[in-house]
Amino acid sequence: ADAAAGKAKSAVCAACHGADGKAVIPTYPSLAGQNEQYLVEAMKAYRSKNRSGGQAVIMQGQAAALSDEDIANLAAYYAGMK
Amino acid sequence: ADAAAGKAKSAVCAACHGADGKAVIPTYPSLAGQNEQYLVEAMKAYRSKNRSGGQAVIMQGQAAALSDEDIANLAAYYAGMK
Repeated sequence: ADAAAGKAKSAVCAACHGADGKAVIPTYPSLAGQNEQYLVEAMKAYRSKNRSGGQAVIMQGQAAALSDEDIANLAAYYAGMK
Repeated sequence: ADAAAGKAKSAVCAACHGADGKAVIPTYPSLAGQNEQYLVEAMKAYRSKNRSGGQAVIMQGQAAALSDEDIANLAAYYAGMK
């Protein structure tokens, strides 16, 4: 996976998850340093709508536009953040 | 919420999420320092089965036994972990 490409892709994510990967909105998760594989699983779960209800709907919309490669790159980028 | 009660409740969680809140299993999330409100939302999403498919099924089983108070206490405990 390509964390630099992930960074380029992460502009829209930063709005909720923070430019430093620490979500200022308390109901949203911080992503900095999270397990890379878990991030992939979570994004795919939103994309496949295995995560629904409540605020999950917002992430469904975001994940719908992501390719597997985008997801891998974003996961590498956030997992690598301290 | 009562983080000490959360700690007492967290024995079973530590098996997957790590005694220090850092999941050694790469497909599971680290919880240490995560946003407290998000942790509450996530546990409730598993309990209500709004999160399904794949490994979510494991957490559904865990969350099914948790009361709102357990969830609040566990969230306080993990959010407070550095």
